[in-house]
Amino acid sequence: MLPFKTLIETDKSLKLPVYQQIANRLIGLIQEGILKPGLFLPGSRILAEQLALHRKTVIAAYEELISQDWLVAVPRKGVMVAANLPVIRPRSFRKTVSPYGSEAAFAFHAVPTVPVPLPPPTTGNPLVVNDGFPDARLAPLSAWVRECRSVIESPRYYKLLMYGDATGSEALRREMQTYLTNTRGLSITIDNVMITRGAQMAIYLAAAMIIKKDDYVIVGSPNYFFADLCFEQLGARLIHVPVDEDGIDVAAIEQLCSSRKIKMLYLVTHHHHPTTVTLSAARRMKLLEVIRKYKLPVIEDDYDYDFHYSSAPILPLASADHGGNVIYIGSFTKSLGLSIRIGFMIAPVDFIAGSASLRRLMDLRGDNLTEQALANLLADGTIERHLKKSNKIYRERRDLLCGLLQSRLGDAVQFTVPAGGMAIWLRFSKKISLKKLSEKASRMGMRITSGEQYHYGTTSQNGIRFGFASLNNKEIAEAVAILEKLVK
Amino acid sequence: MLPFKTLIETDKSLKLPVYQQIANRLIGLIQEGILKPGLFLPGSRILAEQLALHRKTVIAAYEELISQDWLVAVPRKGVMVAANLPVIRPRSFRKTVSPYGSEAAFAFHAVPTVPVPLPPPTTGNPLVVNDGFPDARLAPLSAWVRECRSVIESPRYYKLLMYGDATGSEALRREMQTYLTNTRGLSITIDNVMITRGAQMAIYLAAAMIIKKDDYVIVGSPNYFFADLCFEQLGARLIHVPVDEDGIDVAAIEQLCSSRKIKMLYLVTHHHHPTTVTLSAARRMKLLEVIRKYKLPVIEDDYDYDFHYSSAPILPLASADHGGNVIYIGSFTKSLGLSIRIGFMIAPVDFIAGSASLRRLMDLRGDNLTEQALANLLADGTIERHLKKSNKIYRERRDLLCGLLQSRLGDAVQFTVPAGGMAIWLRFSKKISLKKLSEKASRMGMRITSGEQYHYGTTSQNGIRFGFASLNNKEIAEAVAILEKLVK
Repeated sequence: MLPFKTLIETDKSLKLPVYQQIANRLIGLIQEGILKPGLFLPGSRILAEQLALHRKTVIAAYEELISQDWLVAVPRKGVMVAANLPVIRPRSFRKTVSPYGSEAAFAFHAVPTVPVPLPPPTTGNPLVVNDGFPDARLAPLSAWVRECRSVIESPRYYKLLMYGDATGSEALRREMQTYLTNTRGLSITIDNVMITRGAQMAIYLAAAMIIKKDDYVIVGSPNYFFADLCFEQLGARLIHVPVDEDGIDVAAIEQLCSSRKIKMLYLVTHHHHPTTVTLSAARRMKLLEVIRKYKLPVIEDDYDYDFHYSSAPILPLASADHGGNVIYIGSFTKSLGLSIRIGFMIAPVDFIAGSASLRRLMDLRGDNLTEQALANLLADGTIERHLKKSNKIYRERRDLLCGLLQSRLGDAVQFTVPAGGMAIWLRFSKKISLKKLSEKASRMGMRITSGEQYHYGTTSQNGIRFGFASLNNKEIAEAVAILEKLVK
Repeated sequence: MLPFKTLIETDKSLKLPVYQQIANRLIGLIQEGILKPGLFLPGSRILAEQLALHRKTVIAAYEELISQDWLVAVPRKGVMVAANLPVIRPRSFRKTVSPYGSEAAFAFHAVPTVPVPLPPPTTGNPLVVNDGFPDARLAPLSAWVRECRSVIESPRYYKLLMYGDATGSEALRREMQTYLTNTRGLSITIDNVMITRGAQMAIYLAAAMIIKKDDYVIVGSPNYFFADLCFEQLGARLIHVPVDEDGIDVAAIEQLCSSRKIKMLYLVTHHHHPTTVTLSAARRMKLLEVIRKYKLPVIEDDYDYDFHYSSAPILPLASADHGGNVIYIGSFTKSLGLSIRIGFMIAPVDFIAGSASLRRLMDLRGDNLTEQALANLLADGTIERHLKKSNKIYRERRDLLCGLLQSRLGDAVQFTVPAGGMAIWLRFSKKISLKKLSEKASRMGMRITSGEQYHYGTTSQNGIRFGFASLNNKEIAEAVAILEKLVK
């Protein structure tokens, strides 16, 4: 008889019933070729004795395996491994080694990634300088949980939760239409609105709908690195056009359009990522002309619109006469300061319908409960009040940080005070190695990026985005004090 | 002077301040070429009179536009449209027509879709027969909201909410590893686990990592339609292999593997979609041999594992010796019965890392708050209790529905009682048109699919999935009564 005592281990502390542990192990032994088709297993009493278990437990395991066709009960002879199973040459008497190692047995595609998008880890509770996140401590979390509760307590909530559309909850799309009309001057119906998981999904969907392999796509130099990576993943050839203090170089875009087939333009009109510059009025108008003339599909990424301190935000291209070529993308993740990722895409109706079909294949639909709760927060003014409050606080933080950087770091850094958004584009003097700075900061309890990701595919400016929104006054002072020690 | 009174409309009931409405409209007029570069605007007092507004409002609008470089203040002369703006030939004196019409101005890809995946709409509060959803009325919604609150009240929650990884929350991955080890016999570490938005995202990611254009992919006939559509979208050529009462035809799979390069196999081992059959023990072992022999990458979609009534669930291929070729995918959406979509992918470490890079490009990361709350519900046993309770209720519903279908519909339908899951694969007699039946049902207040989606790319069996889990006893009786009237 096989050494069942060593072959079958059970553990009463596990949640899985012991009889099922035995059954699973027996299946393993059959699959490993140790228990061969046609082999008779020991009677339940004998196996129970060997395993020091109650006989009923073994009987339950055998019955389970009989019902699953692994074993067959042969009258007056006992329980046999099913004869119709293929014969396997046993590998060893050891327990099965996990087939999930560190490497797949098959080939798969490489996905483009950016080097070091995150600062090196530090121990404890580090001070984290991110590249422009909101402060989750200010987020209307209680209001959000309250609205979740109110949704699930509403009559027929269950139908709301069970059935949904890939374009997003109708209530949220309606609120979003009103909100975008009021704040961005867009002229849209709810059929032009699609809710996505954060702006990133909207960028991916829109680009995947437009780009074919080897298509030319124009982006800024530098550009938001996750957009560059996304377009490259979709097979695009990127053409980087310089971004200066007036935004992207529109004359260069026109020149490119006139000389070859450009499939798409991606740009951040407001608070460009990473440099925070805003496209000037003159370039904006010229660009609209180019877009109309060449029927150039454009993704206008306006992730930062709701945060503006020095003047009112400038209306997006999407609000002007772009001839139906501009896909407008934004985010509520930043506005809420929650971990809940909600973005949106505004586009012609047929493009929204196609994007929804594509979204269905990769994510079926969004989370109706969250979307409904957000719609309620938009409708009752919570979001508006939260934005007003955070704009005031973030403006103070921006001013504090800019003042300290100026007075403490002096010539070591260079920056323009951003008109809005959540980060400063902070360029360091050429003699400072950001890689070393990041490593040293880590040892002093501060996580700050080495900035390599901002220069993905473009020329380096030795700069990083320094997010001020998520740090309170004390944390800003601490961060600058650490930087001061490191650059002097 | 231009007729500013008709060109500029303001509305005090809007949330947008009136001065900003004026500024936005003036930008529109500049962009439309009505206000030309170099033109002097009327003084603020004159414009205020025309518009019947306070002079300060007009001044605020002018100042806003000056700060945005649309207008220039010329000392002693007034306010002028900036001379550096491009000259636009005016189109008309009408307000801008919305550029967001029903059709995009540019070309974009078509995405494969299934015909009529949803039954025609009915008015009021229809009885909905879905294709196998859980009952959201049973979902542990209060517990979930409670855990959300507990997460946001925990110290340093804000760092948890702000920073996350594309593979999912560490707490949830750890709980998931334990859960899958205990229930599925998987031998994995947390680095083999990735949390996704529902199983669909895991399917898309895994397939996108493996498939290149024109690759051959084997699927069942019939097959889960959103998987077929997903692989086609990624450029695959599908080979449909028959599914009978023992599951997919493994001999046919081997024959195909020996005759040409097969890039991937997708299968639902448990409660196959749509037919609900489970892969037999003999075929399962044979298939493992084929997988190892041909190093065939497999997506094993086990969306329904947690719901089994007639015997314990059969262990997945992923728990056996598959040589590192099986990517195991499942869902918590069904287990929770929430609108919150959480799925998972189990794969070798390098494949998980690649999939996480790809996910970052289309969705950055998941929702940490939700993931943390779910981890808590797994840890404190809420999920286990919920599954126990729903298995009992769903089993009763299955039995009630099967009994009623047998006694009331008789020869008009044919089905096998499913061992688990949430739906019956209900085939109708050839003389019944499911399209007409669906339309008639709609007029009687019941939404039920015409079933075309189940036969996407394959031969029709004149069948639909009839979800029993989400209907209570009364609703099941009502649904069968309506069907009875329609088939007789």
